[in-house]
Amino acid sequence: MKSLIKFSFLFLIILLISCKQEAQVENKSAVKTETVITDPLPSWNDVNSKKEIIAYVDVVTDNNHPDFIPVKDRISVFDNDGNLWSEQPAYFQLFFAIDRVKAMAADHPEWKEQQPFKAVLENDMEELKKQGEHGLIQLVMATHAGNTTEEFESHVKDWIATAKHPTKNVAYDKLVYQPMLELLRYLRANDFKTYVVSGGGVDFMRAFVTEIYGIPEEQILGSRIKTKFEYNDGKPKIVRIAELDFIDDKEGKPLNIQKIIGKKPIFSSGNSDGDLQMMQWTASNKYKSFMLYVHHTDSIREWAYDRESHIGRLDKGLDQAKKDGWTVIDMEKDWKVIYPPR
Amino acid sequence: MKSLIKFSFLFLIILLISCKQEAQVENKSAVKTETVITDPLPSWNDVNSKKEIIAYVDVVTDNNHPDFIPVKDRISVFDNDGNLWSEQPAYFQLFFAIDRVKAMAADHPEWKEQQPFKAVLENDMEELKKQGEHGLIQLVMATHAGNTTEEFESHVKDWIATAKHPTKNVAYDKLVYQPMLELLRYLRANDFKTYVVSGGGVDFMRAFVTEIYGIPEEQILGSRIKTKFEYNDGKPKIVRIAELDFIDDKEGKPLNIQKIIGKKPIFSSGNSDGDLQMMQWTASNKYKSFMLYVHHTDSIREWAYDRESHIGRLDKGLDQAKKDGWTVIDMEKDWKVIYPPR
Repeated sequence: MKSLIKFSFLFLIILLISCKQEAQVENKSAVKTETVITDPLPSWNDVNSKKEIIAYVDVVTDNNHPDFIPVKDRISVFDNDGNLWSEQPAYFQLFFAIDRVKAMAADHPEWKEQQPFKAVLENDMEELKKQGEHGLIQLVMATHAGNTTEEFESHVKDWIATAKHPTKNVAYDKLVYQPMLELLRYLRANDFKTYVVSGGGVDFMRAFVTEIYGIPEEQILGSRIKTKFEYNDGKPKIVRIAELDFIDDKEGKPLNIQKIIGKKPIFSSGNSDGDLQMMQWTASNKYKSFMLYVHHTDSIREWAYDRESHIGRLDKGLDQAKKDGWTVIDMEKDWKVIYPPR
Repeated sequence: MKSLIKFSFLFLIILLISCKQEAQVENKSAVKTETVITDPLPSWNDVNSKKEIIAYVDVVTDNNHPDFIPVKDRISVFDNDGNLWSEQPAYFQLFFAIDRVKAMAADHPEWKEQQPFKAVLENDMEELKKQGEHGLIQLVMATHAGNTTEEFESHVKDWIATAKHPTKNVAYDKLVYQPMLELLRYLRANDFKTYVVSGGGVDFMRAFVTEIYGIPEEQILGSRIKTKFEYNDGKPKIVRIAELDFIDDKEGKPLNIQKIIGKKPIFSSGNSDGDLQMMQWTASNKYKSFMLYVHHTDSIREWAYDRESHIGRLDKGLDQAKKDGWTVIDMEKDWKVIYPPR
């Protein structure tokens, strides 16, 4: 229920920020190609966060070091929204739901007169706000359920190929963080297994992030709705049902990690209080572990928000990071670029 | 609830078969060392099942063949009980529950007078039978819940290191099928990812099967009880709760495969009707797929059972295998040995 309340806050945020255009200032030349060969994290400035990551990887992969960790236990987990790609002015999956309602409207003439769909179709954000949490659930279930796994996957693929971010005006999958892509590659080059552990929908992510992140479907964990199996005379299908199955947020993250991965991560990366329990769980590993927070400090190239934000609030996490000496990325100072060069 | 009913049938079976001693006839010399180098499945006779497996692996790994399958999609799934190790006279996890009740009895003096524990402690199988499904659930929850993930893991490890099978009189982990261990290795050597997808408890299996099967924790799927996360001032733990979370059997198998792996297997191996939906799901893959049933036909070296059995019933599955041309292993004729040499 808390997550549903969180979802409704998201809607408020969309309404408030909806059409504010922001300049995207990116310095492509900042990534110097000659450094790529020797530097595993070329889009990072020569800052503490980068040095700490490299120092950690050096010792845990050194067979002669007391902190050496066997390959089979090198499990790393990454939150998605706000950690591997942007999450403002709202989680991108919510824009997908809104766009889907519009795409599906022709088959649902009744929506013209039926809330919350009417508000979406009329772009009436004031009315949508009034529909609250109940309206939001209706939107999500109408767009995410009642189809097969294959159909849903194809809806997401179509959307990501065509939709544009409302303020950045680029495809959503261009808004992944280049420095984090390098970090994922760097960890894999050192035999870490990289996982996404996100509050977002697992099937939404699987439809397009495997190529972008280099992470296979089976290493993506997320929230889920229920499903049922139908055989249909030799043509089996899995049908998505309009009911929540698991919310992969807060304490749900370590629980899902234990259910699905079955061992404690050694490296955990997130950007919000929703990732805090995953960080705490990682920090309790018998092996030397690494906790990494992305702090959104860059109001020009990305967005700046933390303790007061309704999306990706980072408050308790920031306190615990300071207290326990976890690494915090200052996005503005630490990263040469935010997004991949185009 | 069906699974619970199934569980109670198990108990009847234990009661009926409990102390029947069986001769274990194994011909160690049947595995000739000189064939190991060239033959990927040395414990298999030169039979159709073996030929079909090798022919399949040959084409799907051949870059120039129209049935070639990219490495990332080479997902293989294996049922555990009766497919990778024996399951008679009852699922081995049930013997664990009974042994745990006895081990825990000193801390539970009240169990001396409280059913179903009293019956277990007095080896009174007639009385235990009378306790039925409700009694069984009490046994399972008392032994599987109310502890942390680490504590439960250590209970299982202690048990597997000391407990003996009631009729074979060897440690339970000696009752894995040597020909299937070779098949797992053979598939991995051809870049298949091997998964266990079992009706058994996922945490029970993870505690000891990773080494035996060469399958890491994150590639083991199974049934689960619920869990909760507690932070405890910097000492987080995951506590196991006495409530079912997911039954990984029948339609639960394809559903869990989709939830956790997120793609359809190309190779599926099982031995009962509980695996049928997983087989059907695999058979619907757009790639050339392989469905493999283990048929328990060896009453001397293992056990012989199929259509009428309450454990590992293979009835509808046998019919569909025949109809659709799936491969069926005749355990007696196809396998030179059942268990690994000791």
